[in-house]
Amino acid sequence: MTSCPVPFDGPSEIVLGHGSGGRLTQQLIERLILPAFHNEWLEPLHDGAILPPVRGRLAFSADGHVVRPLFFPGGDIGRLAVHGTVNDLAMCGARPLHLSVGFILEEGLPLETLARVVGSMREAAEDAGVAIVCGDTKVVERGKGDGIFIQTSGVGEVRDGVRIDARRVIPGDRVLLSGPIAAHGIAILSVRDGLEFTPPIRSDTAPLSDIVRSLLDAVPDVRVMRDPTRGGVVAALTEIALRSGTEIRLWEESIPVDEAVRGACELLGLDPLHVASEGKFLAIVAPEEAGLALAVLRAHPMGSGAAVIGEVTGEDRGVLTLRTRMGGRRMLDLLSGDQLPRIC
Amino acid sequence: MTSCPVPFDGPSEIVLGHGSGGRLTQQLIERLILPAFHNEWLEPLHDGAILPPVRGRLAFSADGHVVRPLFFPGGDIGRLAVHGTVNDLAMCGARPLHLSVGFILEEGLPLETLARVVGSMREAAEDAGVAIVCGDTKVVERGKGDGIFIQTSGVGEVRDGVRIDARRVIPGDRVLLSGPIAAHGIAILSVRDGLEFTPPIRSDTAPLSDIVRSLLDAVPDVRVMRDPTRGGVVAALTEIALRSGTEIRLWEESIPVDEAVRGACELLGLDPLHVASEGKFLAIVAPEEAGLALAVLRAHPMGSGAAVIGEVTGEDRGVLTLRTRMGGRRMLDLLSGDQLPRIC
Repeated sequence: MTSCPVPFDGPSEIVLGHGSGGRLTQQLIERLILPAFHNEWLEPLHDGAILPPVRGRLAFSADGHVVRPLFFPGGDIGRLAVHGTVNDLAMCGARPLHLSVGFILEEGLPLETLARVVGSMREAAEDAGVAIVCGDTKVVERGKGDGIFIQTSGVGEVRDGVRIDARRVIPGDRVLLSGPIAAHGIAILSVRDGLEFTPPIRSDTAPLSDIVRSLLDAVPDVRVMRDPTRGGVVAALTEIALRSGTEIRLWEESIPVDEAVRGACELLGLDPLHVASEGKFLAIVAPEEAGLALAVLRAHPMGSGAAVIGEVTGEDRGVLTLRTRMGGRRMLDLLSGDQLPRIC
Repeated sequence: MTSCPVPFDGPSEIVLGHGSGGRLTQQLIERLILPAFHNEWLEPLHDGAILPPVRGRLAFSADGHVVRPLFFPGGDIGRLAVHGTVNDLAMCGARPLHLSVGFILEEGLPLETLARVVGSMREAAEDAGVAIVCGDTKVVERGKGDGIFIQTSGVGEVRDGVRIDARRVIPGDRVLLSGPIAAHGIAILSVRDGLEFTPPIRSDTAPLSDIVRSLLDAVPDVRVMRDPTRGGVVAALTEIALRSGTEIRLWEESIPVDEAVRGACELLGLDPLHVASEGKFLAIVAPEEAGLALAVLRAHPMGSGAAVIGEVTGEDRGVLTLRTRMGGRRMLDLLSGDQLPRIC
């Protein structure tokens, strides 16, 4: 991770003046943020960016990030904030194009920390092929924030012929998962709880736009996609089951979880199906397309661990169930408490 | 202001579980947020909204809000957050279409407070003719936030033939202001400092999209527009002077400030030129169009106090100056400190 230089003659940490709209705000933007995200749309520094027309339907999404700690194995809040919105757009069947970024900074934050995060966002945006074209920075008093919060939003162009909609899911459809789950949540918790795993469990945070493009090239009629972030696979699929009025039935033995992650989940008393991933996605497709979809995912560098993990049935309505290794069937329900605060 | 009902059987204040992606998150969104912002694009509750194509160039902007207190004479953080992005899009010469909203909530926030803010956002969005189509909610621990922070972003369609760009500003151009300035900043400060003015000074927060539309109907070749929010008229025009490499010279006697606001500024030791407005805008036009532009602004209900307040010269480069009532000329510079923290 390359951090941006901090060419300041002023304070070395964030002060309230950086949010005042005056000289310090101007310096922060002109010297730290603008050079990192440099592009033709951001350059005019207007109230917003004026972008070329988008031909097709427009995908628009927003994602807030309050993860703690700011830096963790495999990533940091900056990468996560870029990937969060890039992936939300990809889940709409869109090619991500442009991102906005809003910072809420706490007084006392070292500028060096901000520079590292901004550098990381630049790298992540470059990797994902998107431009950060507009943004906003606010500062709150010490004790009224927590270092850095980042809100990103983004626009993308939805591919012709693609109709991502949970309401199109019907009995018989198959559920695919692009790879092993729960690494992100466990990476965060292990740092937070001071647990050391050997090798360390790293967040899987990554942009999904390329692997999704490959899938949609081959199978444009994917019914719905969803990345199992906060709330994990259970939250993502429960919502789809509710919207489609179907039963989604997962096959326990087919769900990929890395051994180290599984062990950590057991240690922490967590079910990996509830733990966040940040670089995996679920796709539901017609049964006759499941084989092709799986082959395409597995052929992609980010999908080598892909699997068909379940099916859609009409036996029940609006529920997510698990067919266990023993052949039983149990309900998977949303957690009611606060299992994993500030995971993203 | 009508608040949304809080039909919860659960906790009456925000708990960490509301941000976990589990049952409480679902309840919060389904029962409080979704019914308020109800529209066809938000309804599918996907990772993002899939919107109809936008014909022309796309305007895209983002704006964060950390104002303190949350409620103040003339508005609240919800109205401000909607108007902030609506106005940024209007300043791009765009018709605002769709907004996203990201909440960062502090544990312990009464749900009733959130419901009031959400109700207020709904009203403001309806008034401005925009739909809130996607969003995100995060929760941070008590003492790591401050009630509610709101980030909005938005997309709009830039009108054909309009080319808003500070670099098009040239000597001879005229500077127009749509009405008296500084009411928002003074309204916030008066509540915060426990000052009581009779009658109370109310924030001018309002959507600028309609008055901007009227102006662009008559004068499509407006060079640039800017709303003088954080940092006031000085911050907005300094940036334009820098981008265009011109001197912008204001005429002190022409700058509209309401009497009560002027008095409050004197009391507080503030120059109204540095104080935020949230429902006014600056427009720079060619000299031969200034008369028509002024007439159009004054004919609009939100522009009755409009004035031509200055001119662009080639005498100096990248500076903002004031021709005083006495006929002198002085530089207007950005403030270096944190004059007015958390004004928006």
